[in-house]
Amino acid sequence: MKAARLHEYNKPLRIEDVDYPRLEGRFDVIVRIAGAGVCHTDLHLVQGMWHELLQPKLPYTLGHENVGYIEEVAEGVEGLEKGDPVILHPAVTDGTCLACRAGEDMHCENLEFPGLNIDGGFAEFMRTSHRSVIKLPKDISREKLVEMAPLADAGITAYRAVKKAARTLYPGAYVAIVGVGGLGHIAVQLLKVMTPATVIALDVKEEKLKLAERLGADHVVDARRDPVKQVMELTRGRGVNVAMDFVGSQATVDYTPYLLGRMGRLIIVGYGGELRFPTIRVISSEVSFEGSLVGNYVELHELVTLALQGKVRVEVDIHKLDEINDVLERLEKGEVLGRAVLIP
Amino acid sequence: MKAARLHEYNKPLRIEDVDYPRLEGRFDVIVRIAGAGVCHTDLHLVQGMWHELLQPKLPYTLGHENVGYIEEVAEGVEGLEKGDPVILHPAVTDGTCLACRAGEDMHCENLEFPGLNIDGGFAEFMRTSHRSVIKLPKDISREKLVEMAPLADAGITAYRAVKKAARTLYPGAYVAIVGVGGLGHIAVQLLKVMTPATVIALDVKEEKLKLAERLGADHVVDARRDPVKQVMELTRGRGVNVAMDFVGSQATVDYTPYLLGRMGRLIIVGYGGELRFPTIRVISSEVSFEGSLVGNYVELHELVTLALQGKVRVEVDIHKLDEINDVLERLEKGEVLGRAVLIP
Amino acid sequence: MKAARLHEYNKPLRIEDVDYPRLEGRFDVIVRIAGAGVCHTDLHLVQGMWHELLQPKLPYTLGHENVGYIEEVAEGVEGLEKGDPVILHPAVTDGTCLACRAGEDMHCENLEFPGLNIDGGFAEFMRTSHRSVIKLPKDISREKLVEMAPLADAGITAYRAVKKAARTLYPGAYVAIVGVGGLGHIAVQLLKVMTPATVIALDVKEEKLKLAERLGADHVVDARRDPVKQVMELTRGRGVNVAMDFVGSQATVDYTPYLLGRMGRLIIVGYGGELRFPTIRVISSEVSFEGSLVGNYVELHELVTLALQGKVRVEVDIHKLDEINDVLERLEKGEVLGRAVLIP
Amino acid sequence: MKAARLHEYNKPLRIEDVDYPRLEGRFDVIVRIAGAGVCHTDLHLVQGMWHELLQPKLPYTLGHENVGYIEEVAEGVEGLEKGDPVILHPAVTDGTCLACRAGEDMHCENLEFPGLNIDGGFAEFMRTSHRSVIKLPKDISREKLVEMAPLADAGITAYRAVKKAARTLYPGAYVAIVGVGGLGHIAVQLLKVMTPATVIALDVKEEKLKLAERLGADHVVDARRDPVKQVMELTRGRGVNVAMDFVGSQATVDYTPYLLGRMGRLIIVGYGGELRFPTIRVISSEVSFEGSLVGNYVELHELVTLALQGKVRVEVDIHKLDEINDVLERLEKGEVLGRAVLIP
Repeated sequence: MKAARLHEYNKPLRIEDVDYPRLEGRFDVIVRIAGAGVCHTDLHLVQGMWHELLQPKLPYTLGHENVGYIEEVAEGVEGLEKGDPVILHPAVTDGTCLACRAGEDMHCENLEFPGLNIDGGFAEFMRTSHRSVIKLPKDISREKLVEMAPLADAGITAYRAVKKAARTLYPGAYVAIVGVGGLGHIAVQLLKVMTPATVIALDVKEEKLKLAERLGADHVVDARRDPVKQVMELTRGRGVNVAMDFVGSQATVDYTPYLLGRMGRLIIVGYGGELRFPTIRVISSEVSFEGSLVGNYVELHELVTLALQGKVRVEVDIHKLDEINDVLERLEKGEVLGRAVLIP
Repeated sequence: MKAARLHEYNKPLRIEDVDYPRLEGRFDVIVRIAGAGVCHTDLHLVQGMWHELLQPKLPYTLGHENVGYIEEVAEGVEGLEKGDPVILHPAVTDGTCLACRAGEDMHCENLEFPGLNIDGGFAEFMRTSHRSVIKLPKDISREKLVEMAPLADAGITAYRAVKKAARTLYPGAYVAIVGVGGLGHIAVQLLKVMTPATVIALDVKEEKLKLAERLGADHVVDARRDPVKQVMELTRGRGVNVAMDFVGSQATVDYTPYLLGRMGRLIIVGYGGELRFPTIRVISSEVSFEGSLVGNYVELHELVTLALQGKVRVEVDIHKLDEINDVLERLEKGEVLGRAVLIP
Repeated sequence: MKAARLHEYNKPLRIEDVDYPRLEGRFDVIVRIAGAGVCHTDLHLVQGMWHELLQPKLPYTLGHENVGYIEEVAEGVEGLEKGDPVILHPAVTDGTCLACRAGEDMHCENLEFPGLNIDGGFAEFMRTSHRSVIKLPKDISREKLVEMAPLADAGITAYRAVKKAARTLYPGAYVAIVGVGGLGHIAVQLLKVMTPATVIALDVKEEKLKLAERLGADHVVDARRDPVKQVMELTRGRGVNVAMDFVGSQATVDYTPYLLGRMGRLIIVGYGGELRFPTIRVISSEVSFEGSLVGNYVELHELVTLALQGKVRVEVDIHKLDEINDVLERLEKGEVLGRAVLIP
Repeated sequence: MKAARLHEYNKPLRIEDVDYPRLEGRFDVIVRIAGAGVCHTDLHLVQGMWHELLQPKLPYTLGHENVGYIEEVAEGVEGLEKGDPVILHPAVTDGTCLACRAGEDMHCENLEFPGLNIDGGFAEFMRTSHRSVIKLPKDISREKLVEMAPLADAGITAYRAVKKAARTLYPGAYVAIVGVGGLGHIAVQLLKVMTPATVIALDVKEEKLKLAERLGADHVVDARRDPVKQVMELTRGRGVNVAMDFVGSQATVDYTPYLLGRMGRLIIVGYGGELRFPTIRVISSEVSFEGSLVGNYVELHELVTLALQGKVRVEVDIHKLDEINDVLERLEKGEVLGRAVLIP
């Protein structure tokens, strides 16, 4: 079958023919991929940014944001059969460690992450585990299914971050979304559905600010022109209650802490840059910086529910799997609106 | 009356004769100081570290951790009379802004802070406001009263931080206390009283580690020798659930984020250094860095209750007001055990 | 001036001429009433239901949901001047007890409640305290001001209850609103603005169910026909995550606990009946019953913000003060749609 | 093998010879019972109180609080081998429903409960599932193992309730423990370890009050003599912040709500009686009644950690399995101190 694989850091992925995946563990599931979202993390993987933390063995197939149809299941799997449309939680977890037992799948002590450290979904088929599968309605159209792919990673990552944010977003509060990309454009919608806060969206591309507006942002800010000053004006000098950095580049990490008002919280989702901030300001304003990772299985279930209710939608930009390297290039340049999804 | 005043940054305080404070506002209170704790913030004030944020008008009297006896009250004050023994919340607040109405005194929109930006308690008398006063039992001895001075700032700052920490300190959890000084030695006790966590205390002075042990720390770590490695060994590679940095120097800020396990929280209380940490680690371990400021009035009340119940005690090192510059020097060298308190 | 006063339990209020209120305390404020909402609690007061708990001294003026204009302020009051349009938090609180210091005004140790135990707002003028006043925009129209009266009690009571509810209302959750009256019709809107839950509104009047639909309820249930069965069908046998009883009559109290699913919460706001439920069911489903009282000052501020943003509106039914006894009768019969407001 | 089985409601259990249990499901585990605690729920089962909710098929073996040694495991089970000392979470859960995925095992959609609706541990061997097993240290003595049996149900039920309670137990708060039996005597210890609250223990037996004192209760109250009045005196009229009813008989359910102060919470753990309380008091004091069920797997793990740290211990009263009917009789009369444990 066809797959897009990383052979060498900082080189294009190779589209090549590989073996169909085999069922190995008792709970394995093979999924026929219908769509696989393309994420900034794919760029970071190509750049080798995850090498130290994950130590993946090259070559392998990228793609960690997947939807498709059940193709085959191992003997231990119940309740899934060939043809079932499914969305896949990105992690493969053991289900027995304390993190799993507490519902925090992403902190599983034996976590595997297809597309990050084992073969993922930029391919015709992919192996995962039954614990990662959420069945979708039998009658979902292929088109709608493909559009849901970005929920599997961009979506739940935004969702988990918004859920954390929502705890302190009362009426009258301000929340800043930094970066209206794959995650940010979903976060804008979630904040409007789940909180009464006033949403300020920041980006460096006009087109993305327009998207934010269409999706319900109350204010948009062109981050190329002194974003801190603009946000302070919009909030009448108070700063925001929560800022969410979906970019995490050095450029955004350098200014996002300064968007915060007293007791403000910066939720860090994007990554790449180094957080640097004087502790005297951390304590005098009593601000916090909170990392937020991919959501857990229950959170994906909640998000899928919202999507099926039509309360959140994904702006998708669909391409053939072969075009992956072009898509990655456009993503790096900030030219993808919403989320790019590859179809095999 | 005598007072120790800051005339110039980076110079010793001057012990001099100044006017007795006057009642000005309708809710002012004059307190005859019985004891005033000496804090690292006093060193920072002398160094000018707060100049930019607070813009205090020099000269003024330092001292923000005060106990004493009511001397005089303005017309609007009820329930306080001459001779009442009192502990003073360090901030003077308006009581009407939304932060005050929500109980978060330290975020008052019109906050004054005697000893930081107006005259404080390194003096015979001090002016504050009725909202800052907590009455203590009439029959409290002067000795016991003086020992309570450090609760007014070191104590509630530690208390608020421990309360935040306690939210995720379940049985089997580890908490690291970095710095067993004025705040840290109270935090060790509070953690033992309020949580079931295993307490690891870190310091660079043997004497302070011994104090930590006496106060109930389960493990102590000499931070001069690779503290991250030692903590990882004690926690069998998991890292701590919460680290609390009561020092905040560049040295501690550089290593404390690395003490954290997955979903770990660094509570930053001490200040001075710059926080620097790669965002890829913030998100991959999903850690957070949370500033914690002085506690509010209700928190001081809760802490005083604990102290009166004998569940927490302060190690004090008592000196005459005249000795302030020596005390500050010893504090800077890390030679004060517990908290130094000045008596007029 | 004219006032509607309770002279005897279970008798109509008397519209009579009484003295203009006098400033007594240092922080008193006299408000020229523009509108005063009529609440089920007014019925309960007339019935003597509060006699045991509050021991009010008859006769006195009812009316605890008030808006108006500042007429006079005592010497200690700052920031308010004659003519300022205001909404009044219903309680008069001391600002110094621990409950007040924690922001929980309704639990003030020295609480007075105009319209419940001292003279309220069914009159031309009313005395309250500066701590109860929220200033509204100078240019608010009288019409808009009058429409906001119900926020002062019905509104914040619903708001506080919804804030409690929101904690466990994730996407896919169900919430049942029992009673679409003065509080319930605001709660429906707040739930839609603040949570992603599916809202089921129950009432015994068709007109009120239609109002609920107009305001955004996802489902409506005629509670005259086996409400438990209908709600179980709507939730596919799971029951609701949260039920909110805004009626509290014996009829509703008898069935609302049975609407709950596992870990479900019944938030009790209306009152009158007796809660009765077998403990074996309390524990086997792990449900809870949570009382919710009038919101605090900060909550009223948040709600007013929402109303000024146009995100919540009140359905009002305006009458002259003279008509109070007719209005009370219609209220008892369930014939008031939204909230009745009296204008002097 | 020998087992104590319920053949008919309101009749003694029959000690009889039954077949050794068979491995059926892929994750089944057979445990050689070392000790099985005897619970009030066993009395309730005999009385038929659970018949309506659980519909168990008689006869079956009671016993839901079990420790022992792994005897056999089915093919799907990893990490457990013959001879491993284990404590068993009482429920058998599917691990795949949303409740399980969120960590809330007791709300599993396919829950089985050995000893309640299938064969339990009043026997030489018992079948359960791998998800219910927590391994204990290899070198634990049989005596210590047997003493831990009550943690499996009494212990985690108390633990979960205390964890809920702890959320609002700040310094200066009061908590009332009603019933110092199997659960209550563990709760007293947990409250002292995990919170700074003042603990008031109530019981009708002197011996149990003495046990409470030995275990750290700050005050004890003989509940035969107007418990509400005594608790109000101890709390200087304020009432308690949290009351925990571990009895749940009509007698306790009738008075426990009246122990509560403003914003007080009654946590209901024992059952049998009917909760009855006027809604006007629910809302005017803003109290809540919260059911608390058996804890989840993670909670059992946390509790076991505390026990292995020596921070909580169980008072046990050990008997032979044959004596079960005598033990049940003594339990009903309130004559068991701590928890009775049967050994086969």
